[in-house]
Amino acid sequence: MAAPALVSLPGFRDLTPRDCARRNHVFAAWRAAAGRSGFAEWEGPTLESTDLYRKKSGEEIVGQLFHFVDKGEREVALRPELTPTLARVVAARHRDFKKPLKWFQIGSCFRYEAPQKGRLREFYQWNADIIGEESSAADAELIALGIDALRALGFSADDVAVRLSDRRIWNRFVDAAGLDPAQTTAFLQVIDKWEREKPEALDAKLRALGTTQEAVAGFMATARAADGPLAPVVADLDARGLGDFVRIDPGIVRGLAYYTGTVFEFFSLRPGARAIAGGGRYDQLIGTLSDGAVVLPAVGLGMGDVVLGNLIDETPGPRERMEAALAEVGALDAWVVVAEEARRADALRLVQSLREGGRRVDFSLAAAKVGKQFQAAEAAGARTAVVVGSEWPALKVKHLARREEVTTDAAALAATLDALLGAPLSRP
Amino acid sequence: MAAPALVSLPGFRDLTPRDCARRNHVFAAWRAAAGRSGFAEWEGPTLESTDLYRKKSGEEIVGQLFHFVDKGEREVALRPELTPTLARVVAARHRDFKKPLKWFQIGSCFRYEAPQKGRLREFYQWNADIIGEESSAADAELIALGIDALRALGFSADDVAVRLSDRRIWNRFVDAAGLDPAQTTAFLQVIDKWEREKPEALDAKLRALGTTQEAVAGFMATARAADGPLAPVVADLDARGLGDFVRIDPGIVRGLAYYTGTVFEFFSLRPGARAIAGGGRYDQLIGTLSDGAVVLPAVGLGMGDVVLGNLIDETPGPRERMEAALAEVGALDAWVVVAEEARRADALRLVQSLREGGRRVDFSLAAAKVGKQFQAAEAAGARTAVVVGSEWPALKVKHLARREEVTTDAAALAATLDALLGAPLSRP
Repeated sequence: MAAPALVSLPGFRDLTPRDCARRNHVFAAWRAAAGRSGFAEWEGPTLESTDLYRKKSGEEIVGQLFHFVDKGEREVALRPELTPTLARVVAARHRDFKKPLKWFQIGSCFRYEAPQKGRLREFYQWNADIIGEESSAADAELIALGIDALRALGFSADDVAVRLSDRRIWNRFVDAAGLDPAQTTAFLQVIDKWEREKPEALDAKLRALGTTQEAVAGFMATARAADGPLAPVVADLDARGLGDFVRIDPGIVRGLAYYTGTVFEFFSLRPGARAIAGGGRYDQLIGTLSDGAVVLPAVGLGMGDVVLGNLIDETPGPRERMEAALAEVGALDAWVVVAEEARRADALRLVQSLREGGRRVDFSLAAAKVGKQFQAAEAAGARTAVVVGSEWPALKVKHLARREEVTTDAAALAATLDALLGAPLSRP
Repeated sequence: MAAPALVSLPGFRDLTPRDCARRNHVFAAWRAAAGRSGFAEWEGPTLESTDLYRKKSGEEIVGQLFHFVDKGEREVALRPELTPTLARVVAARHRDFKKPLKWFQIGSCFRYEAPQKGRLREFYQWNADIIGEESSAADAELIALGIDALRALGFSADDVAVRLSDRRIWNRFVDAAGLDPAQTTAFLQVIDKWEREKPEALDAKLRALGTTQEAVAGFMATARAADGPLAPVVADLDARGLGDFVRIDPGIVRGLAYYTGTVFEFFSLRPGARAIAGGGRYDQLIGTLSDGAVVLPAVGLGMGDVVLGNLIDETPGPRERMEAALAEVGALDAWVVVAEEARRADALRLVQSLREGGRRVDFSLAAAKVGKQFQAAEAAGARTAVVVGSEWPALKVKHLARREEVTTDAAALAATLDALLGAPLSRP
C-alpha cells in the first residue's frame, strides 16, 4: 500500500493549536451570547438517515451530501446542517420541555461542494432556535442574539448589519398581482437576484411570470415603510438599541424553500463580503418531518465559522480582540526549573501541588541544563520560573516579563505566586 | 417516501440540554486538567482517508469503520480514533513546533460495533499526547494527567486506579525464554487474557508457544519488584503523591499492536467495571505512517465519554459534583416580567442592557399575565424576577429563592443585581 499523503482530505482542516484557539474563541462568543439570552445547549448525532434530509429538502440535496450505505444496509449521511436533527428531536421529545424552547447547538457539518474561500467540506455551525412561539418577538430575540454574538467578537454597526424581509409579503404580492401560485418559487428566485441582475433582465423574467420590475420595485418601497409588515420586528430591535444594525430589505428571500415568515441575513459592510449568518421562521418544518404528528412554530439562526473567521481577520476590532484572547490561551503561570537533579522528586511534588491549586504549570521532562530550561520557559511564554535547587526548600521565583526575582520556600510558593500573578482563575 | 423515524440511528445519541450539560461537564474537566499541565488543544478532521487507518492497524480495522467512497472516488472513513490523525499531522508539521509537543484533542469518533452499555457507535474521545520525548518522565506526566482529570471529576484513589505495564519487558521475556519472535503477538494475546482464563487453559496455550504458566507467573513477580523496569514511572508518580492510584500489573498489554513501551489502563475499583482510559508509548507509529520520513518518540492517553459517564452516575462523589455543576449551567440571573404591556419597549431595553453587562436574562416573549410570567421565571430557575410596570422607571426586584423584594429603578438595576447576586462571572 502506498504511504497515505500527510495532508487532510480536500476541504478538511487540521487545526493546530493556534487555529484551534481561534475556533475556541468563536465558540466561546457563541456560547456566551446564547447563555446570556437563556438558550440551552444541546447536540445531535453527526450521522443521520439520508431520508431526514430528503424529507426536508428534496432529492436534490443528496448531490451535496457525504452519504453512503452503512454495514447494516442503512442509507446514512453526514449532516449538512443542524436544523433537520433539531426538528426530528423536537417532534419526538417536545413534551418533555416547557415551550418556548430556546436551544442552541455548535457542531461539525459536511457538504460535498467545491472548496473555496469561505467554503469548506467540513465546517462548524452555530444554530440557535426558538420553538413553540409564533410571535414576532421570537424573530427579534434571535436577531438580537446574532447581533450580540457578533458584538461579543468585536464587530460594530460599522462592520456588520442584518437584512430583514418576510416570505409572507411575497406570498401576498403573488396573490395581489394575480401570479400563478405554483410559480412562487420561480418568482422568489428572480427576487433573490434583484441586486445582481440588470433591471432589463429582471423585467423580462418578471414579465414572463406576469408582473414587471416597476411593480415589484413599488411593492418593495411599501414593504420598507415604517408601518409595513416588518415593523414589529424592527420596533423590537429599535427598543433594544440595536436599530443601527437593521436594514429592511424585501429582496432577501433566502434560498431555502422551508422558510414561512421572517427571513434575515447577516452580512459584512465590507465590499464583496458574503453572508455571515442567516435564518428565519419555519413554522411547517416540524410538521413536515413528523407527517403532521407535531406542529410547532419555529424560528432559527445559523452562523458558520468559515466566513466569520475570514471576516475577523479582515476587520481590525475583532482581529485585535481575538489576538488578545489568544495571548491568554495556554499561558503558563509557572515553569518549574530543576536546577539540581537530586531535587527532581521535590520538583515533581511542587508541580503537582501547584496544578492541584489551579495553576498552569510545566517543566522540562528530561534533565537539561538550567539555561536550556529557562529557554524552554521563555519559549512557552511562562509568566514565572520557579527554580528548585540545592537550597531546597528555599526557592527562587523569577517573573520573566518583569525580570524580577523573589525568594520563597516550597510551603509558601502558592502564596508567592498569588502575590505575583493574582489568584488562579479557578481551582479544580 | 415514508416518514423518517423520529429516532437517531442505533448507537447514536440525541443530547438534549441535560445530557449536553453532562457532556460539557466532562469536557470541562478534560480541558482544565490538560491546560493546568501545559497541553495545547488541537483538532483534526472527522473524515480521513481509509488508508490512514489501514496503514496503522491493518486491513482488519476496516471491518469496524464507517467507510465509503466519496463523490470524488476517494476511499474515506469516519475516524475511529484520534491517534492516526495526530501522527499524520505531526509527521507533516512537527518542524513548526518546539519539542516535546504536548497536545490534546476532544472529538467525536465512530465505530461500527454492536451498541451495548459503555459502547456506542459515535462517542467522544479525549486524547493527550507527548511527542518528541523518549524519557519515562513523559509516560508519568501523561498518567498523572489522567489521574488529575479523574480527580477533577471527583474520583479518588478509592474509586479508580491505573494498571501499569511495559511492552519491552515482554519482548525481553520472549527473548530470554527462546520463544519464536514471530509469535510475540500471539503470546501477548494469551497474556491479555491472564486474569480471565483458567490457569490450565493458559498453561496449555503457553506450552504451545514454548513456555509455561509457571514461568510467566514467576517473570511477572520479578517485573513487579521495586527495582523492576517500571520503577522510574512509579517513582515519578510516587513523588507527585499519586502512588495510591498506581498498580504495577505486567498482565496489561493492551490490544493495540503499535505500543512499544509503557502501557497503562485506568479502571474503576467497582466490581465488573470496564477500562475507563488507556494508553502507552508508541515510538514507531509516526515513522510507520510517514514511511520513515519522520521518526519521533511518542506517548499517548485516551479516555472516552461513555464508560466514564456511566461511572460518574454510579460513584457518589463524582455524581454529586456533576449534579452541583449542572445546577449552575444555564442558571438565569433574572427574568424580566412585563407587568404593563405599554412598557414592553422599556423592558426590552432593560433585557438588552443587562445581557450586555454579562447577566443571563430571559423574559416571556409573548404578552402574558403577570402570574404566568412568574411561573415561567420559577420554571426556568431564574434567581430574580425584575418587574417592569406602570411605576417605570421604578422597578421591583424579587429574589425568588429568598422571597425577598427590593425596589430600585432602571438606572440602578445593574448595581442592585450585583448587590443581590454578586458580580456576573464575565462581561462580554
